[in-house]
Amino acid sequence: MKGNISGSAAIQRILSAAALITAASIAAAQAPPSPLSPLALMPLPSSITRGEGAFTVTPAGGGPSTFTYNYGQTHDARLEAAVRRALIRLGRTCGGEVLRSTIDHPTPTNASLLINVAAPGEPVQTLDEDESYELRVTSEGATLTAPTDLGAMHGLETLLQLATTQQGACVLPAVTIHDEPRFRWRGFMLDVSRHFEPVGAVERTLDGMAAAKLNVFHWHLSDDQGFRAESKKFPRLTDVAAEGEFYTQDQLREVVAYARARGIRVVPEFDMPGHGSSWIMAYPDLAPGKPIKTLPVVYGMPTAVLDPTRKSTYKFINTLVDEMGRIFPDAWFHIGGDEVQGEAWLADPEITAFMKKKGYDKPAQLQAYFNQQLEEILKKHDKKMIGWDEILDPALPKTILIQSWRGEASLSDGARQGYQGILAAPYYLDGQKSSAQMYLADPVPTDTTLTTEQQKLILGGEVCMWAEQLNTETVDSRVWPRTMAVAERFWSPQNDRDVSDMYRRLRINALKLEDVGLRHISGPETVRRNLLLKRDPEALDVLASVLEPVDFHARSGLQHTNGWTALDRLVDAVVADPPSRQQVAGEVEAIAANITVPPPADPKLQLDLSGDVPEGSVPSREAAFRRLRQRFLSWQAAETRLLEDVQRTPRISDAGARAEQLGELAEIGLSSLAFLESHTAPPPGWQEKQMITLDAAAQPSALVRFTVLYSMRKLVLAAAAQTDHGR
Amino acid sequence: MKGNISGSAAIQRILSAAALITAASIAAAQAPPSPLSPLALMPLPSSITRGEGAFTVTPAGGGPSTFTYNYGQTHDARLEAAVRRALIRLGRTCGGEVLRSTIDHPTPTNASLLINVAAPGEPVQTLDEDESYELRVTSEGATLTAPTDLGAMHGLETLLQLATTQQGACVLPAVTIHDEPRFRWRGFMLDVSRHFEPVGAVERTLDGMAAAKLNVFHWHLSDDQGFRAESKKFPRLTDVAAEGEFYTQDQLREVVAYARARGIRVVPEFDMPGHGSSWIMAYPDLAPGKPIKTLPVVYGMPTAVLDPTRKSTYKFINTLVDEMGRIFPDAWFHIGGDEVQGEAWLADPEITAFMKKKGYDKPAQLQAYFNQQLEEILKKHDKKMIGWDEILDPALPKTILIQSWRGEASLSDGARQGYQGILAAPYYLDGQKSSAQMYLADPVPTDTTLTTEQQKLILGGEVCMWAEQLNTETVDSRVWPRTMAVAERFWSPQNDRDVSDMYRRLRINALKLEDVGLRHISGPETVRRNLLLKRDPEALDVLASVLEPVDFHARSGLQHTNGWTALDRLVDAVVADPPSRQQVAGEVEAIAANITVPPPADPKLQLDLSGDVPEGSVPSREAAFRRLRQRFLSWQAAETRLLEDVQRTPRISDAGARAEQLGELAEIGLSSLAFLESHTAPPPGWQEKQMITLDAAAQPSALVRFTVLYSMRKLVLAAAAQTDHGR
Repeated sequence: MKGNISGSAAIQRILSAAALITAASIAAAQAPPSPLSPLALMPLPSSITRGEGAFTVTPAGGGPSTFTYNYGQTHDARLEAAVRRALIRLGRTCGGEVLRSTIDHPTPTNASLLINVAAPGEPVQTLDEDESYELRVTSEGATLTAPTDLGAMHGLETLLQLATTQQGACVLPAVTIHDEPRFRWRGFMLDVSRHFEPVGAVERTLDGMAAAKLNVFHWHLSDDQGFRAESKKFPRLTDVAAEGEFYTQDQLREVVAYARARGIRVVPEFDMPGHGSSWIMAYPDLAPGKPIKTLPVVYGMPTAVLDPTRKSTYKFINTLVDEMGRIFPDAWFHIGGDEVQGEAWLADPEITAFMKKKGYDKPAQLQAYFNQQLEEILKKHDKKMIGWDEILDPALPKTILIQSWRGEASLSDGARQGYQGILAAPYYLDGQKSSAQMYLADPVPTDTTLTTEQQKLILGGEVCMWAEQLNTETVDSRVWPRTMAVAERFWSPQNDRDVSDMYRRLRINALKLEDVGLRHISGPETVRRNLLLKRDPEALDVLASVLEPVDFHARSGLQHTNGWTALDRLVDAVVADPPSRQQVAGEVEAIAANITVPPPADPKLQLDLSGDVPEGSVPSREAAFRRLRQRFLSWQAAETRLLEDVQRTPRISDAGARAEQLGELAEIGLSSLAFLESHTAPPPGWQEKQMITLDAAAQPSALVRFTVLYSMRKLVLAAAAQTDHGR
Repeated sequence: MKGNISGSAAIQRILSAAALITAASIAAAQAPPSPLSPLALMPLPSSITRGEGAFTVTPAGGGPSTFTYNYGQTHDARLEAAVRRALIRLGRTCGGEVLRSTIDHPTPTNASLLINVAAPGEPVQTLDEDESYELRVTSEGATLTAPTDLGAMHGLETLLQLATTQQGACVLPAVTIHDEPRFRWRGFMLDVSRHFEPVGAVERTLDGMAAAKLNVFHWHLSDDQGFRAESKKFPRLTDVAAEGEFYTQDQLREVVAYARARGIRVVPEFDMPGHGSSWIMAYPDLAPGKPIKTLPVVYGMPTAVLDPTRKSTYKFINTLVDEMGRIFPDAWFHIGGDEVQGEAWLADPEITAFMKKKGYDKPAQLQAYFNQQLEEILKKHDKKMIGWDEILDPALPKTILIQSWRGEASLSDGARQGYQGILAAPYYLDGQKSSAQMYLADPVPTDTTLTTEQQKLILGGEVCMWAEQLNTETVDSRVWPRTMAVAERFWSPQNDRDVSDMYRRLRINALKLEDVGLRHISGPETVRRNLLLKRDPEALDVLASVLEPVDFHARSGLQHTNGWTALDRLVDAVVADPPSRQQVAGEVEAIAANITVPPPADPKLQLDLSGDVPEGSVPSREAAFRRLRQRFLSWQAAETRLLEDVQRTPRISDAGARAEQLGELAEIGLSSLAFLESHTAPPPGWQEKQMITLDAAAQPSALVRFTVLYSMRKLVLAAAAQTDHGR
């Protein structure tokens, strides 16, 4: 077997003190690894065939190994760097003590990994580049074939996801994969205006994107709350309208290079003519009305808007597009265009005169005029226009691209009019929806009424992370792992809709993303530790595990969030769609499979999602009783400690009510189990009393909601259905 | 009470669902907070007097509050920014919903905090600046008085450490503090050559330094393994000798500004004439001998050395000092000067001819000549020379400063010859010594034989973090919290040597440092999760809690570390001096106070430290039995799971032996407890058998050592001392 060096002496040295384990492990390594344990590829490839056996990367016991690679055809610096990064990660996964690569270009020998790439990618990555690849693994080694670097880089990510441990050895199971994306535009948008994210956070997000095979980083660089990209032509944009938080041009270029190295295009967004308070504060001549003295920290839709009637406005934009267009070489340039408020236009006599002259009676017409000018400017700089729904207007050419925040219907409307589009609305992360909900939303659903030609105009979609309720401490856990579920929607075949299997693979890949450097698991843990200033905040961990944030609108309404709001409360220490929902659902299902849960009496109650039970997650009835009891006892213990913590620590004062409710849920759960186990009917009125408590727990509080109320309801109904000794 | 707004309506709204708690908390807030719970200031101030009562920052229940501040005298942008940062942190600590500051300059009113600063600091911070401050807190508010920003910033850190929770309210206890540092040079050195650290890691380290009142960041920017500072004059230094990992000049300036904003000087080190492989690889003409083709990844003392006989060498250095001297405005410039290997000089005919002409027969004399020329160059650029021990030579003027890596004796020698010095040797973090060991080492020990005048030449010391065995994932946990203990040595009065109290305060401030953004607790947790790819690696956490890394030399010897070595093993997931040593020691002390532990039979055994028991950490005998039993049971459970994990996960293959030993320790502990509780004598030979097992656990394995063997030994001896029913 290649990939193993003999090295048993070295293994013995390293593990000499663990003779027992070593012996067992080495024996295991010599037995062939079991071939067909399920894989955890994400996104799922277009086509996959499992083979017999596996290629051993490191033997059992984690001893030294040599993993070699060759280039069969050609390679360039980008691919070389990608291979090196991949091998470092493979070394981490496999724990090779001296995992080394040797380069043996250009003569292919029997290397562990043979890479055949026909040509490098385009100098500036395009929408139309071939991203396909083929990956074959046999017990002799792996072969990765791709038309360009792009496919090869995707293939390397697949290879890393293949690596798994079998009986102590680290192996690549034998497999033949043909893979290519369903959509060409697989994006992720990050708003860095409402809250700024440092370069390090952006770059690790790009690492996550590469792992998820996403290929467009849409950088929302300007909004009312700040202009975040340094302009040498218009230095006041960041001097006065960024509060010191912005990217220098060197940093912008660094991010572009970092993304390119990972097969990701960077599309910058400079939002205009609305959401432009920062521009106007820096350069008041851009807008009608009075100068702006301070950045608006209150979120929403300020009325500040660029003046589309002045020549000077277009001169400014032309200069900015020229400057930024060089920093961002991508063919597409995002001009925003959303939520333009017309009041300031209508209040300005010169603008209204202009509108009258043109025959416009609505601000939307003036915006269309503005966009026409903009499109001319972009064309001059070899850029194509992308913008939000509102830019759609028959006055604009069919070359523009519509990003739909308004939803599937709006997207289809555009396509019917012949406009290209991408879908964003269902993928707003601050909606705090579950991975399943976002995963099932499809840019081109199976029941689409679009013609085949119209469907081709839908280029893909974008996951969007708005930053009103986000900061550097929470960005990872708001973005990941849910973004990976959507990435699969964008990449994998349309008929890939198995939610159970998606979750199985998502849980595994979520852990791997942490190893890539993301902090979606460790971040919230740290926030919880810091909230309590306690080394081991386990009671808060227990509470947090059954909570998730309320959605954007609910939080805005309850917290009156603005730019000054400290984002360091309980809600910032919990994550959307935690594993608890499904774990509890599976356990309850084992006990109460026959129970149907009616909706709550009060339709306004913000109940958690239905307790979907992923396949394979229903334990035996006996195990379910045991696990649920342990769970409820841990909730009870957590309540007691949390009430002390809340007293001691003003910072989690708002967790008090939720802690008490956790105790109540525990009591409901334990008494339900008792009735169920003893086959005893609860006393009259018991069910109603429990339901009142469950309804109370479904009320908004502390900006979070429980994830287990559906299953608790089901458990109560199961207990209530007992008749005495009805076994 | 100022600082409380009435706001009871708001409190009710926030906590309406937790009526019980709210009511209790509000009642508690109205009672005066208990005045004299112990403070946790670190470093300890020169003088502190406790007063009556406290100033309430936020009331019980964490409701809204307004914390206001004024400037009584003057202020500048630096102080303003520092105050704002401090208030954000105070808001985090106190959990104020809308903690806001108002600036009411220049008329002092009855603000929560009155800041009196006589003048801003020097434009470039100097060694001699007054860093003193005075902080008075009464129930009416706080007053911070300082000659300059520097003292005021130190006072703000003290104020933040004062903030504490009493009966649900967040308060500043009444106190009068007069404070000033014992030493003027309180440094921290970071090696970024052996492994690079990104700007983010450097900046959060500076945040930690500011919290610890350290004032010199010594940046080891060049070594054999890489030149990390961009030079526009000599671009090859980073083009070819940094593998892409270096700081741009913008980044260097950013770090200098970040440090200045926190009262920290930045002293760059460019190590010469030895440790210069990176320079010589980039510019071969700088050195005798053959050109260097690749950076030496193997650590040690390569023989590459600059040529002190060529004029061109000094021209190069002059240009570099000029360029870097502008980026680093500090008066001091560190020229390294350590571990110069003379072989290359002695092998070069021109150099030996030069030496002969000068009458030198030893390389050290040639180095002294080199340093003389260097000193002239530095003087020309208004820089003072600092270097390691080896630069000490009578040929050099008394204005130079010696940094002693050789230890206290070498430092004192220098002072006797009239040279200024700072102490580094006892503060090498990769020595993996305990906080107590490092804390007790004193630049001027009480038993010094130096005269008072000579003592004045000792300016302070530096904690040093070398990076052969360090990466970005581990830097926080290697540096913190131990550096805070040394920072206290540098700042606080000489007679502050209460190890127990130091640890009490260190544990509290370690948690606060995490809240500042450091990752010394969450970082190793993440490494452990990633090692296992397990969401909750609790068994590994249990094992890690009783392990610490072996020291630098032991690890080098066992792992043959070099630049390629992956630093992602068990040793990288454990920290020096974890709390377990003292916890177990305290528990065993409660049971076996009368037992003396002799040294182990084999003097070569690398035993853990003696089980020093911090005051107040000895529980009742009953609690000790309970806690130890729980502890040993958790060790037992962890062993079982870990042996599975080790099989499954090649990356921690080397943890197998340690896991088995953990199980053995658990068994020893449980059987010892059984004899002790039942007052039963163990059978003959029992003690010897346990000691053999304990000795085996003290053998090197997996690059880690146990922290509890001393106490386990003591427990065994206590059990062995039982006589049947000897109650």
